[in-house]
Amino acid sequence: MNITVIGLGLLGGSTALALKENLPESRIIGVDSSQQHAAQALTLGIADKILPLKTALEQANVVIVAVPVNTIVQLLPKILSTISDNTVVIDLGSTKERICQTVQSHPQRGRFVASHPIAGTERSGPVAAFSKLLPGKQMIFCDREHSDIDALEKADYLFRNKLQMQVSYMESAAHDRHIAYVSHLSHISSFALSNAVLEREKDEQSIFKMAGSGFSSTVRLAKSNPTMWAPIFMQNSQNIHQALSAYIDQLQQFRAWLEQQDEAEMYQWMENANAIKTILSGIPTEGQNKT
Amino acid sequence: MNITVIGLGLLGGSTALALKENLPESRIIGVDSSQQHAAQALTLGIADKILPLKTALEQANVVIVAVPVNTIVQLLPKILSTISDNTVVIDLGSTKERICQTVQSHPQRGRFVASHPIAGTERSGPVAAFSKLLPGKQMIFCDREHSDIDALEKADYLFRNKLQMQVSYMESAAHDRHIAYVSHLSHISSFALSNAVLEREKDEQSIFKMAGSGFSSTVRLAKSNPTMWAPIFMQNSQNIHQALSAYIDQLQQFRAWLEQQDEAEMYQWMENANAIKTILSGIPTEGQNKT
Repeated sequence: MNITVIGLGLLGGSTALALKENLPESRIIGVDSSQQHAAQALTLGIADKILPLKTALEQANVVIVAVPVNTIVQLLPKILSTISDNTVVIDLGSTKERICQTVQSHPQRGRFVASHPIAGTERSGPVAAFSKLLPGKQMIFCDREHSDIDALEKADYLFRNKLQMQVSYMESAAHDRHIAYVSHLSHISSFALSNAVLEREKDEQSIFKMAGSGFSSTVRLAKSNPTMWAPIFMQNSQNIHQALSAYIDQLQQFRAWLEQQDEAEMYQWMENANAIKTILSGIPTEGQNKT
Repeated sequence: MNITVIGLGLLGGSTALALKENLPESRIIGVDSSQQHAAQALTLGIADKILPLKTALEQANVVIVAVPVNTIVQLLPKILSTISDNTVVIDLGSTKERICQTVQSHPQRGRFVASHPIAGTERSGPVAAFSKLLPGKQMIFCDREHSDIDALEKADYLFRNKLQMQVSYMESAAHDRHIAYVSHLSHISSFALSNAVLEREKDEQSIFKMAGSGFSSTVRLAKSNPTMWAPIFMQNSQNIHQALSAYIDQLQQFRAWLEQQDEAEMYQWMENANAIKTILSGIPTEGQNKT
């Protein structure tokens, strides 16, 4: 099976490595707009060969699209217009509604499976890729009624059977509403924390000696790649606006209690927040405190 | 050496375990207002015996005060009035200015070393204690000019020589200003994130399947104990108010760019935030992504 992976960064690279590990008969054809990334992907064994996009698409049985979501929107119609009738195209973008809208009336829409693996780290590029990123994690397929049955089956075979992911199905609009809260908002909170602290402490680097593992944990996502995240924020701006406003409301409420020295309300608010304990117990612990 | 540890939770318990491991001649006398915690501390080998406060103070060569900061303020004058002239008292509270003010004119002020170890997890109670929490971490001693030289030397011996901590010195007011940014604010951002998400998703628990390691990381501190944190927020409210306002400003700025669809500004803002990478590289990685 020829699998063309477009975008050989953390997610595309990790998918390629996992497929090679779990599907030895697969042959990974890599495509990347960066010659440096393409060369690294060859060296690291992520891709078996690098080809130009058009040739890579013509040779593909499966196409994995792992580029920033604005590039997915640009490329996806061209990809669908180039592939054979039997090829399956799977994207890995963190937004789903705009991507699905872009190809909704494309004659080859059925060959496309809109996907979002719940996996990532704050690192980026081929050097950050590792074969264990996806296995065991959640994989969400969106708007499955618009995909051909054999295309869905192929996506299921690769990600559920071969990569051992937990598959679930959602409507793309619902996906985007919820992911704004449980992923996109976390990234904004972290970028904002980094900027607030850097702004305050710009002349006193030594102060970071005072930062412990708690700060590291909350600010970790501020290391994430802007090239990936700016298009996500643009595409999901309405849902993110709502989530961010709810978050700012919580912070302003807390600030009011601070002004009023209302310890009882603060206490109750924290106790409510503690309920996340039971919910988090079901989430993979990467990035969580190991103790 | 008799070391009396008041408060046998995560921090007091971990300090006791580390001292027993690295100073075999020490004898840990435990004090805790919770009979259950006292009993657990005995079972877990955190304390060699449990005594009432007054007796425990009379027998102590060193007193470690590891209770919530409001309780430190209440207890510390009484502790200083009860100990012998040779006993050293060390607190481990996350605020320093109010605590130092409380005893500034106490005749035994010199016996007190105001301390803050930069170490913790979101867990609490004796069962959360472990001997490796403190070794290798930062220890800040505040307002050292108000401590007797032999008291400082004893604190230094225990935490630098025996527990292998990195010791630095600060003025208590400066400590509280900076710690508001690099610790207290992180906790508020995390509690607020938890509440914003729980409020939105209260009827859809299944949505948390969509939460990955990024969400876990940013929301981890929301599991922290309100009994410890409410008094910290009360005592350091002015500095926290400033830090929190700077944070809310960052978020509102981002929200404005979201409304204006200003991708260039968002990108620049994230790129600035990325600078935290180099700074974080010096911080212990507990709670950070392991990849």
